[in-house]
Amino acid sequence: MSDRQAAIEAEDEEALDPRRVAAILEAVEAGDALRLQELAEPLHAADVADLLEQIGPVDRRAFLSLYAAEIDGDILSEIDDSIREEVIEALPQDIVAEAVRELDTDDVVDILEDLEAPQQEKILEALEVADRVAVQQALSYPEYSAGRLMQREVVVAPEHWSVGEAIDFLRSSDHLPDQFYHVILIDPRMRPKGYVTLGRLLSSRRDVVLKDIVEDSFRTIEATDEESEVAYIFNQYHLISCPVVDENGKLVGVITIDDAMNVLDEEHEEDMLRLAGVGDDSSLSDGALATARQRLPWLVVNLFTASLSAIVISRFEGTIAAIVTLAALMPIVASTGGIAGTQSLAVAVRSLATRSLTSSNARRVVLRELGAGILNGLGLALILGLAGTLIFGDPKLGAVLGMAMICNQIVAALGGVLVPLTLNRMGLDPALASGTFVTTLTDVMGFLAFLGLATVILL
Amino acid sequence: MSDRQAAIEAEDEEALDPRRVAAILEAVEAGDALRLQELAEPLHAADVADLLEQIGPVDRRAFLSLYAAEIDGDILSEIDDSIREEVIEALPQDIVAEAVRELDTDDVVDILEDLEAPQQEKILEALEVADRVAVQQALSYPEYSAGRLMQREVVVAPEHWSVGEAIDFLRSSDHLPDQFYHVILIDPRMRPKGYVTLGRLLSSRRDVVLKDIVEDSFRTIEATDEESEVAYIFNQYHLISCPVVDENGKLVGVITIDDAMNVLDEEHEEDMLRLAGVGDDSSLSDGALATARQRLPWLVVNLFTASLSAIVISRFEGTIAAIVTLAALMPIVASTGGIAGTQSLAVAVRSLATRSLTSSNARRVVLRELGAGILNGLGLALILGLAGTLIFGDPKLGAVLGMAMICNQIVAALGGVLVPLTLNRMGLDPALASGTFVTTLTDVMGFLAFLGLATVILL
Repeated sequence: MSDRQAAIEAEDEEALDPRRVAAILEAVEAGDALRLQELAEPLHAADVADLLEQIGPVDRRAFLSLYAAEIDGDILSEIDDSIREEVIEALPQDIVAEAVRELDTDDVVDILEDLEAPQQEKILEALEVADRVAVQQALSYPEYSAGRLMQREVVVAPEHWSVGEAIDFLRSSDHLPDQFYHVILIDPRMRPKGYVTLGRLLSSRRDVVLKDIVEDSFRTIEATDEESEVAYIFNQYHLISCPVVDENGKLVGVITIDDAMNVLDEEHEEDMLRLAGVGDDSSLSDGALATARQRLPWLVVNLFTASLSAIVISRFEGTIAAIVTLAALMPIVASTGGIAGTQSLAVAVRSLATRSLTSSNARRVVLRELGAGILNGLGLALILGLAGTLIFGDPKLGAVLGMAMICNQIVAALGGVLVPLTLNRMGLDPALASGTFVTTLTDVMGFLAFLGLATVILL
Repeated sequence: MSDRQAAIEAEDEEALDPRRVAAILEAVEAGDALRLQELAEPLHAADVADLLEQIGPVDRRAFLSLYAAEIDGDILSEIDDSIREEVIEALPQDIVAEAVRELDTDDVVDILEDLEAPQQEKILEALEVADRVAVQQALSYPEYSAGRLMQREVVVAPEHWSVGEAIDFLRSSDHLPDQFYHVILIDPRMRPKGYVTLGRLLSSRRDVVLKDIVEDSFRTIEATDEESEVAYIFNQYHLISCPVVDENGKLVGVITIDDAMNVLDEEHEEDMLRLAGVGDDSSLSDGALATARQRLPWLVVNLFTASLSAIVISRFEGTIAAIVTLAALMPIVASTGGIAGTQSLAVAVRSLATRSLTSSNARRVVLRELGAGILNGLGLALILGLAGTLIFGDPKLGAVLGMAMICNQIVAALGGVLVPLTLNRMGLDPALASGTFVTTLTDVMGFLAFLGLATVILL
């Protein structure tokens, strides 16, 4: 024990390393609230949330009952959706109420979104009236829209103000947001006309007019814009914060880069998991049953698409019966096609996500994929054809392997880019189901080309 | 033409939509520099860079010769590595020199990193002496380290200063960085002790001491830390900027969130492309030959791993000769295993990247995957077993299909999580090559289980 304690003290005082996790779990099991306090208190809210996600449900309940008084709004807001409901249920009502009251409205909205109606009600009741109205207004925007992401606390000034007037106003304000990076200039109708960075405000003379030191990079986001659009704009134009307007151009809130970064991260997760055929709402804290349930649908779909391959192969049973070696060789052509399709697909999905693949260059990219497919098809055909000829002493078999490889590489390269492009043009997520489509295509084509050519040439 | 023009004017004035791209290409082909100016000038530097990436190499050269005078440092810094060298070579020396002189040192470093030595030399010569020294110092840090990311322009104040003193100092400073969000408090040895947000500075009275309004969230990064660590810290702790220190704890620079967001984005790209077996340095502007070359290595590796499946199958040629239908059915078991392995793998790689999968919960996650594999194996076995029995009228064949499916689902679920965990523990990138490992595993296991069971039960 003393060894472990020394090790903890030697480490970064604030980090959530496995040693600290083990020590925390020991304290939880021993019911030692004081020791737990000592170990968990230096942790950042984000790390406490990670801890709750990493430990099992039994330990989680025990931890929460010992540590309830220390759970604040920041921790609740950092916790992953997948266990937030469970955590909130495990906490006394008054702790939850106090926790949410500290938060900015955008964080409250983020917490409420994923809760069931009765829990939502309880939290709304705990809020002060002004905050409750703000949260309800935010919830009236569509899910995954800018209106849900924005914080309603904004710092504004009329265009004609001077730097001195703005600074005096900020000094006299009681309720400034936790974070703000710009003073937004508005016209008399509350429409944003530009913004001034705080750095600029601080380094300018008091008599300078705000209008004269606005940033070039100014742009606004509509409250109904999708959050993926928000992430794109922040990343593309290096914004730190951005005013949000309603349909009349009136300022209704502001989005800051940390929210945009969060969305970007989630979008990436979505792309990666969808490409692999995993539901977006999967989480590491799910149990085996929930995990199995999320993954089963695509497995069942694949069972059917794989049957297509089986049907194709069964048409050539005569050929296989005549030359059984074909059965052993056919997966090589199919699987190398699968890899090539996956490569082409990953590049296309990523390029669509970053908007570098557009209708302006789609033709050129498709032709490039075709070219790459032909080149790699030729290269692989050479290797496989030679190997086949040498190993089986049959140049005809080598030729069949090589030709089938070329066909399938071309199909793979084209399929990998055309499937996501088509889904995208249909307004669907290009990552969704593309993987299954493309590998089905390369499997079917691989078996068909190989067995078809074998039937014609070898029989 | 007038139709198109009207359409452009109706659209967002500043967006890079396909219509504007088409109009720009028309102007380039007509050699109409005035019209080109009119169309390209309203674009943000990031959009001009995207335009250059989206058009082909011939158009790119023509565009650059007409538009050279307008290419500034921001555009150069936004351009993707893959075409930056080409763009810089196409521009007159003096334009490049002037462009880099405007940039912050971190952006110059970013540009220089990927250039060949002679081009690097020319750009370094174009810089003012102080900037050149700063850039060379940054380049002395390892690649992909915080030292390469940071900007050296910092805004500091002694701890004992008051708000008023800090503001007066900022007003009298000539060379403040383009962006800064904190005033960093330092001790007499230049070691950072905390920071004050500009918002806090602006809203506090002039006589308040800076030390009393520092942020809780203060932390520092070491210049030799990896950039992936930087991205993690910014994302985890919602930082906006973070001081960078050398091995003695002395302040050497500051990293801002836009750079961290950029790294996060690149890390995601790397994970996604590596999982799919595509080299990290692939880009949409590469030609067919470059693309083929990047993808060929994993395809060749797969050719060999697929041969393992072929060897396994060839051991059962007697069984297949006796029951040819087996050849048609065996890919179903293998391919469904491949999908399950890919699902488990994507979740594990993502969880390792976000550090939610750690040694604290690895055992629980592996057991969960095992559980999910067993459950889905049972579910799929039921469907496939029944279908096999009904279609072929042979309950024994159904049993073989079902049992092989259960084996392979378990192998897939475990392989998908154990392969990346092992790579990670070996200090390798868990995304690298995992895909090939896991699908080889599920292919080999699928064929082995199915044909092996068939030999025992059906012959």
